[in-house]
Amino acid sequence: MEGEQSQLGLAGEPPTTASPGAQQGKHDDGVNNDNEDPENQESGNGGIRSLEQPLLKRSNTLTASHLAMVGAKVSHIESLDYEIIENDLFKHDWRRRSNGEVLQYIFLKWALAFLVGLLTGVIASLINLAIENISGLKMLHMVQLVRDKRYWAGFLYFSGINFALTFVAAVLCVVFAPTAAGPGIPEIKAYLNGVDTPNMFGMPQLIVKIIGSICAVSSGLDLGKEGPLVHIGACLANLLSQGGGIRWLRYFNNDRDRRDLITCGASSGVCAAFRSPVGGVLFALEEVATWWRSALLWRTFFSTATVVVVLRGFIEVCRDGRCGLFGEGGLIIFDVSDVTVRYHVGDLLLVTLVGVIGGILGSLYNYLLHMVLRLYNLINDKGKSAKLCLALAVCVFTSAGLYLLPFAVPCTPCDPAFGAACPSTGKSGNFKQFNCAAGEYNDLATLLHATNVDATRNIFSTGTPHEFRLDSLLIFFAIYCVLGLFTFGIAVPSGLFLPIILMGAAYGRIVALVLQRFAQIDHGLYAVLGAAALMSGSMRMTVSLCVIFLELTNNLLLLPLTMFVLLIAKTVGDAFNPSIYEIILDLKGLPFLEPKPEPWMKDLTVGELAAAKPRTVSLQVVERVSTIVEVLRGTGHNGFPVVGRPRPGLSELHGLVLRSHLVAVLRKRWFLTEQRRTEDWEARERFSSVELADKSAKLEDLQEITPEEMEMFVDLHPFTNTTPYTVVETMSVAKAVVLFRAVALRHMLIMPKFQGPEISPIVGILTRQDLRAHNILGAFPHLANKRKAH
Amino acid sequence: MEGEQSQLGLAGEPPTTASPGAQQGKHDDGVNNDNEDPENQESGNGGIRSLEQPLLKRSNTLTASHLAMVGAKVSHIESLDYEIIENDLFKHDWRRRSNGEVLQYIFLKWALAFLVGLLTGVIASLINLAIENISGLKMLHMVQLVRDKRYWAGFLYFSGINFALTFVAAVLCVVFAPTAAGPGIPEIKAYLNGVDTPNMFGMPQLIVKIIGSICAVSSGLDLGKEGPLVHIGACLANLLSQGGGIRWLRYFNNDRDRRDLITCGASSGVCAAFRSPVGGVLFALEEVATWWRSALLWRTFFSTATVVVVLRGFIEVCRDGRCGLFGEGGLIIFDVSDVTVRYHVGDLLLVTLVGVIGGILGSLYNYLLHMVLRLYNLINDKGKSAKLCLALAVCVFTSAGLYLLPFAVPCTPCDPAFGAACPSTGKSGNFKQFNCAAGEYNDLATLLHATNVDATRNIFSTGTPHEFRLDSLLIFFAIYCVLGLFTFGIAVPSGLFLPIILMGAAYGRIVALVLQRFAQIDHGLYAVLGAAALMSGSMRMTVSLCVIFLELTNNLLLLPLTMFVLLIAKTVGDAFNPSIYEIILDLKGLPFLEPKPEPWMKDLTVGELAAAKPRTVSLQVVERVSTIVEVLRGTGHNGFPVVGRPRPGLSELHGLVLRSHLVAVLRKRWFLTEQRRTEDWEARERFSSVELADKSAKLEDLQEITPEEMEMFVDLHPFTNTTPYTVVETMSVAKAVVLFRAVALRHMLIMPKFQGPEISPIVGILTRQDLRAHNILGAFPHLANKRKAH
Repeated sequence: MEGEQSQLGLAGEPPTTASPGAQQGKHDDGVNNDNEDPENQESGNGGIRSLEQPLLKRSNTLTASHLAMVGAKVSHIESLDYEIIENDLFKHDWRRRSNGEVLQYIFLKWALAFLVGLLTGVIASLINLAIENISGLKMLHMVQLVRDKRYWAGFLYFSGINFALTFVAAVLCVVFAPTAAGPGIPEIKAYLNGVDTPNMFGMPQLIVKIIGSICAVSSGLDLGKEGPLVHIGACLANLLSQGGGIRWLRYFNNDRDRRDLITCGASSGVCAAFRSPVGGVLFALEEVATWWRSALLWRTFFSTATVVVVLRGFIEVCRDGRCGLFGEGGLIIFDVSDVTVRYHVGDLLLVTLVGVIGGILGSLYNYLLHMVLRLYNLINDKGKSAKLCLALAVCVFTSAGLYLLPFAVPCTPCDPAFGAACPSTGKSGNFKQFNCAAGEYNDLATLLHATNVDATRNIFSTGTPHEFRLDSLLIFFAIYCVLGLFTFGIAVPSGLFLPIILMGAAYGRIVALVLQRFAQIDHGLYAVLGAAALMSGSMRMTVSLCVIFLELTNNLLLLPLTMFVLLIAKTVGDAFNPSIYEIILDLKGLPFLEPKPEPWMKDLTVGELAAAKPRTVSLQVVERVSTIVEVLRGTGHNGFPVVGRPRPGLSELHGLVLRSHLVAVLRKRWFLTEQRRTEDWEARERFSSVELADKSAKLEDLQEITPEEMEMFVDLHPFTNTTPYTVVETMSVAKAVVLFRAVALRHMLIMPKFQGPEISPIVGILTRQDLRAHNILGAFPHLANKRKAH
Repeated sequence: MEGEQSQLGLAGEPPTTASPGAQQGKHDDGVNNDNEDPENQESGNGGIRSLEQPLLKRSNTLTASHLAMVGAKVSHIESLDYEIIENDLFKHDWRRRSNGEVLQYIFLKWALAFLVGLLTGVIASLINLAIENISGLKMLHMVQLVRDKRYWAGFLYFSGINFALTFVAAVLCVVFAPTAAGPGIPEIKAYLNGVDTPNMFGMPQLIVKIIGSICAVSSGLDLGKEGPLVHIGACLANLLSQGGGIRWLRYFNNDRDRRDLITCGASSGVCAAFRSPVGGVLFALEEVATWWRSALLWRTFFSTATVVVVLRGFIEVCRDGRCGLFGEGGLIIFDVSDVTVRYHVGDLLLVTLVGVIGGILGSLYNYLLHMVLRLYNLINDKGKSAKLCLALAVCVFTSAGLYLLPFAVPCTPCDPAFGAACPSTGKSGNFKQFNCAAGEYNDLATLLHATNVDATRNIFSTGTPHEFRLDSLLIFFAIYCVLGLFTFGIAVPSGLFLPIILMGAAYGRIVALVLQRFAQIDHGLYAVLGAAALMSGSMRMTVSLCVIFLELTNNLLLLPLTMFVLLIAKTVGDAFNPSIYEIILDLKGLPFLEPKPEPWMKDLTVGELAAAKPRTVSLQVVERVSTIVEVLRGTGHNGFPVVGRPRPGLSELHGLVLRSHLVAVLRKRWFLTEQRRTEDWEARERFSSVELADKSAKLEDLQEITPEEMEMFVDLHPFTNTTPYTVVETMSVAKAVVLFRAVALRHMLIMPKFQGPEISPIVGILTRQDLRAHNILGAFPHLANKRKAH
């Protein structure tokens, strides 16, 4: 019996700095620690109970919070299981799988990728349709009031409609789905990196995101529908991958397949936003996805191709005004393919300047937005009504700005060359008459009294070097800088793309206008380059932005200039701060695994890191029920090493068992009266691999276990992943991080350097949280100093 | 002393099927095996000597050939070291590295990426210049002879020039650089997958590739300069990364940095070939590279941007005829941006048909090319003159076909709508007069009497539905199918892209012409779609081909159709056989690691695999010189596990030491008189990390070691990578393959399941060769049957 008792406290090479108690897995915010002497534990018995007592935080203890901001709420986050779990039950399952089932599986993957593309395309088209009609009608009536000189009525009407729309969007977000606020892209990025954020990709989020996006964009707020569309694509993918009760979909019970489909969803979203199929794939590849395979490239491409066909179909159907005010619009396409781009040295210098300033402005925007978001977090913490008030306040401010500012600039007489196009009084058009006399137009109204997409199209328009006055552009730039900073954090679905594109386009035109002596190419193209520069300066993407701009402008000759600007702006921006998505990820506390380890991680071994954690809790291959229950109750870990001692003098690291599998065993009450290893068929008779893959069961939902049952045994070997990835304790953290990310681990087991009969075969377990730079620096402050020296 | 003797034959859990002797690493084609009884080895001494004796091959022994076809020669291949080697010397080196050095390193990486782009661009432009002028002058004179009705003189002149050009290209290839024949892309693919092929990326290859490409393309052979340009980019990258004697470049002593730069080179090559910067990056990502990081995306993008700027510069300079016959030409750009693409259901059906037949034709092409290449291998084996004769025979056949076939078709009268453009007698032009009367043109001459690039431009030309007669197109398609099959394998630098594009374009036009009732869009666009379909059907790329075609045609509206065709053709093609590059890789015997493990690999554990290999040779931490010398001489392995026994009852897997490091130690004669562990500074005083990174030293180059020295000791611990990646012996091969490829391993160490004092801490080592499906099936034939059952 002695050999079978809990191995708690029998850790390997003495990690003298380790403090006992709870450890990796989900902490309840670091409270269940204790300050008992480590030697206490060596007796082997009673080690479990101490787990429930609080532990004094030591400075050299590695603590990791498992909480993050999801939506505006602090939530519990979990890691995803991307590892191939080789336990007896799963192995048996795929051995049994027939050819037909494999084909069905492949077909299903493609069918779902198609469905994701199809639905994303349809929803994107409907959103566009709604936005164009709502905001078009609003504008038409407002302009009519202004033409009748009923300025106040116009203002009240304009603001009132905007207020109502924002109210709907914000109430939906605040009440039904707080996680639907914002763009959702950082959370998707985190999910694809292996972090599961709760309530992020469900049906409420999808619905709120769709309706909220329509309302928010129609209300004239300075935000785009691009980010939300990406989130909508991901939600669709997640809902489809779970598939409800359909028997077919039982294959999608692993996190890997879900990850792939969500990647398809994100690409589809970008594609739907910009009508850019290749750009969508590359966006997913460059910005969103962490793991990438050639097969995935192909499947995402299939999804975006579907989206494009759907979008074209809708435009084809709506061509003759059959869809109200929705025409070709709604999707940003600035076709500048008719402009010949021949540039000279002067332009190259100017373009360099655009890139450099774009990089500086982009990183400045990141910095300021970070400040604003921290401030907003404080406000949002005050409760639902505070969030609602904030959104409405921003809406009122925006409405006032958009309505009143055009009155501040003088009217411009129409250039006869433009003919009937100037002035325009309809919804879309480049020369808004607004408050001006016939034959004149208000250039600021052209930019402000339009949906953001139309505004972008107007400011990008080519062949119009004298359309916009410098002071109008400066006012536009200033107001959009302010709005861009203060709109993003409010509780409505909001994308970052369009605000930055608008800011950048204005900035590009300003540069071209100020230095027009050197600018030989069209001012509209400078607007495009300015937008690219600011995007790259803030988001730090290169290839995907380049392709998106290529697909938007449909002008290949602009490509070298765009590449040039993007590279410069990214380089400059990187010198100052990380990309905006990384800032948001950090602000939300999502444990994102960076692709490259920090240089100082080479100076620390995983053994030292494991020693800074509380001692590892391990289980025996055949374990007493009471011990399992105690371990599950006493810790929040999601994986437990299973060790064995087949005969004296031999030790064995049998593998790793997941919490969800232990819970499944307890729920089924698969207990043995005697302490023995079972035959393989015994477990297979009771457990199906589908049941085991279900991770939703909670320990709290279990029926009470009787004292008799507590004294019984469980044979863990059918459930144990016998081939977890292990590294030796002398490995540097830098090398371990590379492995951890490359093979998408959740638990990394640390083996002792020396093996012998008295030495436990396991030194510790490291998880995602333990390998994050921030957490390591908390436990090893001297490394931080070293970092500064670098 | 007993404890320090060689551990040969002290493997862990008894791998009863293992046969002793030489094992992983480079075999001399399986000859140094022996058939002694395994128990013989257990005595511990004399085990080394037996390694030199031949071993009977057992059916269940895993044998792996380390030979592959490189060029047309069977050569020894090695794996590359992409793993982070954590040994004492290297660790000390980067700890000492100052901030300045780190910055210098980053700067150098970017500077080299720039240089690779710059030089690739310049060389590509010069190649174009030369080809256009040589082949242009040749054509002009030949046409003049035909116009004078001196048909035989024309034929002799045309064939003679072609013969001479092919002769130069073939002699260069055969005599100076056999590896410069063919496209080089499969070898680059293998290199980036971790396989080092000797004499592949050196200066002779570069020069022969440049001159050979110019001659081969100018001689009218059915081959392109695209593949060779990719190889040229890779050669440049490799040469720059080695940097000659420049002190600066000492940082590039690891395979990882070289790999990154060669990726940049490959992208630059594609970009230079198609003037397609984004397509170049994606080609590298989708087809060539095995490991990819976001940082690499950015750097390859920088390289291709540089290439584009250089290409534009050259075209700008040559615009006004300052470069002879080189104008805008030389780079394929079929600008069809002025064509409006509005397609209907009929077109969609026709496009689907184009895709399906394209997939079938593409895979048929792969199949037939495979046959032809096997035949050619037999011919090439006969020696240099056979290779030369083969190339010249193909040249004569090609010349005859190109010259004579146009006489077989009737002349077509010019459509007056084309005006002065028809007929054309100059070099380039769409309506070649050739043997026809004034006012008439020979449509087959238009296609055949032009460089391949011009031919492509002609066949892609839009607005010319009636230019080509069906019989001319059929003849063209037939002759190019034959030439495309029989030209590729000859001993000149040759690319696959253009032959396939030409075949595909002809096929697309034929479909459009035959079914013109349904074809509403331009026949030139059908040619584009046909080319895309055949490319995708043979090469199985999607996104990169799509972007390349987008950048070539500069027409975004064609994109959905192109995507559609590419996806269909790839799907159809995949149903029949693997892509052409995979076929060539397989034919050459290059051990390429596939991204996905085979399904049956789940049924085999790495322990079983290791047991099928001869027993592992391991070294002690402090080892006798004589043992090291014997091990190095007796085996060809590149890595040896180092085991220790710090005290009785404890065992230690100290790590893995590389052959090159052992050779470095022997060369420096860093021997100890007594058997002790050295202090860290002792090794550091003698060895620099740069010396250690040099892998060129050979065992044979060593000075004779005296018998006294033989009795001395070496402390291996400063050289041992103490943190090799290990897996437990029960892991399935499928899971191990995923790890092996994900972290780019060279050696994977197998640990025993059970640990104890009598058990060796190492069960075996697996290398790339051992994990290849083909080799595993050789040792475990029952798995092959299982595969068929699937």
